[in-house]
Amino acid sequence: MSSTTGRAEGRVTIADVARQAGVSVPTVSKVLNNRDDVAPDTRDLVSGVLATSGYRPRRRQRETPASPLLVELVITDLASAYALEVLAGAEAGAARAGAGLVISAAHDHSGEDRSWLTALRARRPRGVVLVINRFGGGSVEDVSSLGAPVVLLDPAGSSDPSLPTVGATNFSGGVAATEHLLGLGHRRIAVITGVPFLLCSQERLEGYRAAMARAGAPVDEALVRQGDFTADGGQRAAAALLDLPEPPTAVFAGSDLMASGVYQEARRRGLRVPDDLSVVGFDDVTMVRFMSPPLTTVRQPLGEMAGESVRLVVEAARSADGASSPRGRPGGPADGAPAPHVQLATRLVVRESTAPPR
Amino acid sequence: MSSTTGRAEGRVTIADVARQAGVSVPTVSKVLNNRDDVAPDTRDLVSGVLATSGYRPRRRQRETPASPLLVELVITDLASAYALEVLAGAEAGAARAGAGLVISAAHDHSGEDRSWLTALRARRPRGVVLVINRFGGGSVEDVSSLGAPVVLLDPAGSSDPSLPTVGATNFSGGVAATEHLLGLGHRRIAVITGVPFLLCSQERLEGYRAAMARAGAPVDEALVRQGDFTADGGQRAAAALLDLPEPPTAVFAGSDLMASGVYQEARRRGLRVPDDLSVVGFDDVTMVRFMSPPLTTVRQPLGEMAGESVRLVVEAARSADGASSPRGRPGGPADGAPAPHVQLATRLVVRESTAPPR
Repeated sequence: MSSTTGRAEGRVTIADVARQAGVSVPTVSKVLNNRDDVAPDTRDLVSGVLATSGYRPRRRQRETPASPLLVELVITDLASAYALEVLAGAEAGAARAGAGLVISAAHDHSGEDRSWLTALRARRPRGVVLVINRFGGGSVEDVSSLGAPVVLLDPAGSSDPSLPTVGATNFSGGVAATEHLLGLGHRRIAVITGVPFLLCSQERLEGYRAAMARAGAPVDEALVRQGDFTADGGQRAAAALLDLPEPPTAVFAGSDLMASGVYQEARRRGLRVPDDLSVVGFDDVTMVRFMSPPLTTVRQPLGEMAGESVRLVVEAARSADGASSPRGRPGGPADGAPAPHVQLATRLVVRESTAPPR
Repeated sequence: MSSTTGRAEGRVTIADVARQAGVSVPTVSKVLNNRDDVAPDTRDLVSGVLATSGYRPRRRQRETPASPLLVELVITDLASAYALEVLAGAEAGAARAGAGLVISAAHDHSGEDRSWLTALRARRPRGVVLVINRFGGGSVEDVSSLGAPVVLLDPAGSSDPSLPTVGATNFSGGVAATEHLLGLGHRRIAVITGVPFLLCSQERLEGYRAAMARAGAPVDEALVRQGDFTADGGQRAAAALLDLPEPPTAVFAGSDLMASGVYQEARRRGLRVPDDLSVVGFDDVTMVRFMSPPLTTVRQPLGEMAGESVRLVVEAARSADGASSPRGRPGGPADGAPAPHVQLATRLVVRESTAPPR
């Protein structure tokens, strides 16, 4: 192919591409800069020629102000089903907003390793979505100091109210899970909570308590166990619950992963789900499709939450580019408007892990 | 806090930070640019002052050539356990190499929607890892035309040998899975393959055939079923296998997700794993921890493969920056050296889903 030679030499110019495509040089330039004001057919034609001609952008063009917006997503840890939902939703949100998405994991459970922050600062971020569900203290302040718009996704607690947050209706989710089990006739309903310092754990537990109280069902505190959002933690809590003189007939686990731990412990004891034990999870991560029987769970729209977070950050970054706002934070105090605090709805998804008690 | 005021006004300068930290302006600049030649204590001190002083980089500094290297990872689809392993490994590899990682999903199963390519081109990538396991044709060529180093991760087939690839020893994995089942005493061993046009599917199946032949066990072609790397596909294949007049006593599924489909079908029929049916998967994605009983599977080091791919791309991008090589492709034909084709080892992980036949 003659195009290969041109490509390898790196000598194809925009003018060559324009000539080959039969369009003007500014048109090629618009396509290269991803501008809207090119007819779709023309864009396809030029893209095709660019792809086959071997045109190669010059280095100095790379860093022009017209380069597309990149937003950063920082998450404690990537190795979880939770992270997967967040990343997929954030990527989709960034693609919709015409932005690129840079991801980084903090691996900073203790709050002592801040190399992620050094790297983030070096990239001079234009917008940051922070998923600090398991961070040590201080991170929010550190990231705010970068001078870029920040949105907190699934906020860990009641942080600075001037920072925008996107969360889910965890309390309602706890109510829905518990009312489903009550409706099936369960009364000895156990709950396995997430780590206690996270707002979402507290809200789900409070939802459980509210539903029990509304139904006039007393809460046996022996049935309230603390978990840690891991499968092992779920299994340990289930073992303690099933060792009780009067074990529960149903378990509401504060995450799908903990519910999978409950499955493990039930199987180990020869108990069948849902015949011998009903189980409800929380999150409805894609990975519950690995579970058998299919898990009844409360769907938390993590992907949509991540997409909405990215949308808010992109909007703020663009308005900071165009306006004189010194912070560029969406609705931050500098604008005089309150920061948005979005809560997306959770909903119960009934599958095959719940049934009436024997 | 007085620092809040400074921050909100955006007026803190590098000189202010230097004064506050008691260091020189060039030292602050080195910390901001993530340079190595600063003592750790000094770096910590300056980072602390930067974080609390409200120093805010000016826009025009953002796009200097000293800005950190960003590499791109393009994957067909983010919503899979496979994708999670790849992303986590790629992020870790990028962090180790001092690079940032931009992720994008192509959502381009048919090869017809190329908006991801337009967006990628607009970002003027300096290095690309392509995970095109389910792409339509042409993508590799399109991405190669961007003039940046490209590495193919888990290559779909025998593409241009001048492109570096990072894969796994799929054939050996198929042998190991099958020999494990043969060693337990199974003879009627079924196999559920992945999509047939992928190299990895073919290699795993060939490993099965080789192990059966070596053991002198005839392959009943009724026990060879085509799957599609989905749980539903695994379940459908398992249903067909278990409907046979003489059903298999063991199933080797070409992915963990298909193995979860086999679990579903076994449960639906009241069969217990491994008592009534042994199951082996492939991949050992983190998400197998959702499965009960814990799955015996062939570990494919997807995270390490992704990390190695990023390392190769970063190395090539840096050498392209410093050298006169027109393509900057690692070991591409322009250099006269063959492109690296790395295969990382798979290994069998025995858990609780396999046992001797009844």
